[in-house]
Amino acid sequence: MVIARNAPPHIVGLIVAAVGVAMGLSGVVGLLYGGPDATALFVSAAIAIVSGLVTNRLTARPGDLTIRESYLIVTLAWLGAAVFGALPYWLAGFASPLDAFFESISGFTTTGSSIFQDPESLPHGILFWRDLSQWLGGLGIIVLVVAILPFLGVGGMQLFRAEVPGPTPDRLQPRISQTAKILWTVYVGLTAAQAVLFLLGGLSLFDAVTHAFGCMPTGGFSPRTASIGHFQSPYVQYVTILFMYLAGVNFALHYRALRGRLGLFLKDEEWRFYTAVLAVGLAIVFGANLVAGTYSDLEATFRASAFQVVSIGTTTGFATADYVSWPVVTQIVLLILMFIGGMAGSTGGGMKTLRLWAALKQGFVELRKHLHPRAVIVTRVGGKVVHEGIMLNIQAFMLLFVASFIVGVVLLTSLGVDLVTAAGASAAAIGNIGPGLARVGPVENYAWVPAPGKLILTALMLLGRLEIYTVLVLFHPEFWQRTRSRRG
Amino acid sequence: MVIARNAPPHIVGLIVAAVGVAMGLSGVVGLLYGGPDATALFVSAAIAIVSGLVTNRLTARPGDLTIRESYLIVTLAWLGAAVFGALPYWLAGFASPLDAFFESISGFTTTGSSIFQDPESLPHGILFWRDLSQWLGGLGIIVLVVAILPFLGVGGMQLFRAEVPGPTPDRLQPRISQTAKILWTVYVGLTAAQAVLFLLGGLSLFDAVTHAFGCMPTGGFSPRTASIGHFQSPYVQYVTILFMYLAGVNFALHYRALRGRLGLFLKDEEWRFYTAVLAVGLAIVFGANLVAGTYSDLEATFRASAFQVVSIGTTTGFATADYVSWPVVTQIVLLILMFIGGMAGSTGGGMKTLRLWAALKQGFVELRKHLHPRAVIVTRVGGKVVHEGIMLNIQAFMLLFVASFIVGVVLLTSLGVDLVTAAGASAAAIGNIGPGLARVGPVENYAWVPAPGKLILTALMLLGRLEIYTVLVLFHPEFWQRTRSRRG
Repeated sequence: MVIARNAPPHIVGLIVAAVGVAMGLSGVVGLLYGGPDATALFVSAAIAIVSGLVTNRLTARPGDLTIRESYLIVTLAWLGAAVFGALPYWLAGFASPLDAFFESISGFTTTGSSIFQDPESLPHGILFWRDLSQWLGGLGIIVLVVAILPFLGVGGMQLFRAEVPGPTPDRLQPRISQTAKILWTVYVGLTAAQAVLFLLGGLSLFDAVTHAFGCMPTGGFSPRTASIGHFQSPYVQYVTILFMYLAGVNFALHYRALRGRLGLFLKDEEWRFYTAVLAVGLAIVFGANLVAGTYSDLEATFRASAFQVVSIGTTTGFATADYVSWPVVTQIVLLILMFIGGMAGSTGGGMKTLRLWAALKQGFVELRKHLHPRAVIVTRVGGKVVHEGIMLNIQAFMLLFVASFIVGVVLLTSLGVDLVTAAGASAAAIGNIGPGLARVGPVENYAWVPAPGKLILTALMLLGRLEIYTVLVLFHPEFWQRTRSRRG
Repeated sequence: MVIARNAPPHIVGLIVAAVGVAMGLSGVVGLLYGGPDATALFVSAAIAIVSGLVTNRLTARPGDLTIRESYLIVTLAWLGAAVFGALPYWLAGFASPLDAFFESISGFTTTGSSIFQDPESLPHGILFWRDLSQWLGGLGIIVLVVAILPFLGVGGMQLFRAEVPGPTPDRLQPRISQTAKILWTVYVGLTAAQAVLFLLGGLSLFDAVTHAFGCMPTGGFSPRTASIGHFQSPYVQYVTILFMYLAGVNFALHYRALRGRLGLFLKDEEWRFYTAVLAVGLAIVFGANLVAGTYSDLEATFRASAFQVVSIGTTTGFATADYVSWPVVTQIVLLILMFIGGMAGSTGGGMKTLRLWAALKQGFVELRKHLHPRAVIVTRVGGKVVHEGIMLNIQAFMLLFVASFIVGVVLLTSLGVDLVTAAGASAAAIGNIGPGLARVGPVENYAWVPAPGKLILTALMLLGRLEIYTVLVLFHPEFWQRTRSRRG
């Protein structure tokens, strides 16, 4: 029996049920490790699966989704996953409802900010769920909406456009579901490869899998209190640097590279820019740490600098060092990297290198226009002309991103948080990084943040992860007016 | 005898000579007060007048200026004025050459950042010159280039467009020189009115004139060590608040208002936005100070809050309180106001409210475009359609402004300056405000900043004051290539 012809709850219900299945799987992991948390995970799983399926059954399977319904689904899917995904933390007694929600949305948005001071004190099932939620979030970002939603009858590129991180990357295959499956394979393959390399490095199966789950979505949750820095092995750290770097690359490029076309990396303007940004950031941080003598030997200085630059630059958020104690200039470099983020089409957050690159090119074009006021000068990215309308959208996105960051800082400082901490926390939330600066640095956590501050940060995480417009559009008066009048 | 057919030196020479005349006038003031600084001022005046006139005579009077020559003249005029205007500080033995240049360019760009710890220890002639340089800078911004340059044969709106602060304000009169004279009259009239009101408030003639000279260009140099806070009279402080506010308003609006059309203020979208921004800033700062109990009574809280908000929001930089000791949220609000700045067509710095307002409207349009992907939606400001090309230019300007600020912060922190101080100093320089945060707060000064840091800040002042593009365009390779090939 269908009580309402309403597509969004139909689809979101299915996603919540899927989240429930994943929690059940985590419950099994909890059981295997004999932890006391399996019950909480199974109960949460049951609640999510039942709620999801009931919602799904009571609402109509949609025909063609409207653009607005698609936007609504994206935001509701992330919110729904985060709400139900929070249940285990709360039911197992490890967090208040607000803290549990914070941890959960931090997971699904692949942010990695945590309210847990000592993850190692948590049972294995909860820790597994924590990293699995990030991995699912990453899956959601690159794949879920282009693979599952078309299967449900959602065929519009408009949703793909809203969902894929970054401005429309060129299509790999004409059909969205096919594209999704390809990217999904790349994602799973890279995760598996990393886990195997971790195992070879001496990590336990649990550590290998959870850290791979935290890395590929550029998430950053670690079951270790000292993050991945728990493992002092340079091999493990270099493997992590490599896979964080890969996680920040457009997955379509990976797919092409796996098919033997490695040269495409070098030909890709955005890839060159992404790599150059990280290289310049590394050069400054490495240089500053060398001059300051932060570490005793050259290799350790390079490794710590590279790890932190790549971790923050790709918006992963793993840590092997407390960069808050590094020279000030390294912290501003890391703060800038938080804003830039990964490539469009990667799991990385931030503004995305494609947008920054396009805006930089536009800046040059504007200068040339001042020299030749009557000439028609176009901006090209990757050899293709970027039309003024698209460029306006990119620039407006960047300004909205900065504006959201600023609103976050104002609200946090109004709660009495100091300026550097507020700036670090706001940037880490909207850029989906995790650790920020000062009191939310890599060896700190978010437990102490006042309750309203936690809510502000969750809103920023969602805003950043869903590319701002997707969420903001729901607050445009016309979004609701027209939908209502159309649906009667 | 003309040795080179080169228009820029011809005009810049004349400007330098005019700066010399103004220094001579300051020397007379020095003599009147019996100070030992008259000699330094007269010698500086002689050097500037001779250098300027010789340069002027040895180069050709231009016919039609090319666009590039015009850009070059704007930057060289400010640099030339700053270099020669620095001589008195150095020759009188009060500053090293670098410090003298810093103080001078801070004056001509109407910034107001000072390397003097205790201005009251300086003789009257030097103090008069210090504020006169700001007043001349303000004159330059709103008038000089549209009044003097056309007289020299420069007739191009292209230069006016490059020079008038902010994106092309609508023309008052068809002829540029007439517009310039009108705005010049408004500027002089408001300065005189403020000086008279200060005299009525019990200030000495010297204090009244110098503070009026520092206020109307939104400069902020005060001959008093405690800035205008030296005068505890609420009357004097409210008069200052009013005139700082007026200095941040488009002078074309003032002119129309003086002709009895006060209603135009209310009809002006940008004026409403400018006023709303200051009102919201005031509400937050006032509220935070009330809650924190910064002052004992309501009126004092309001007055101190209003003074600092209007002073920073209009980019003037006068101070009656050390806001660095206020609640953190007030400082982030002041930091944001530094970026916003005054109205286009005012003497205020920052990004200008017109740009921010246009970008905000564009942000809304982008949201609507996401709802109606096929509709053609235009952005209107003041009832007029803003074409995509102009909007791109505005957005790119804002991104370049933020990027310049960030580069400033990176360079300053790499010199070991702490993050909050670096952010405050960089914002205060590019926004032409003066005081920043932490160690460059309103009761501090810039004397301690390392030498490379001072050079970085002077570059930012110039970049911000000349609307970024004007300066950056000189660094575009094509600027020099084509000029050369054209001139052979």
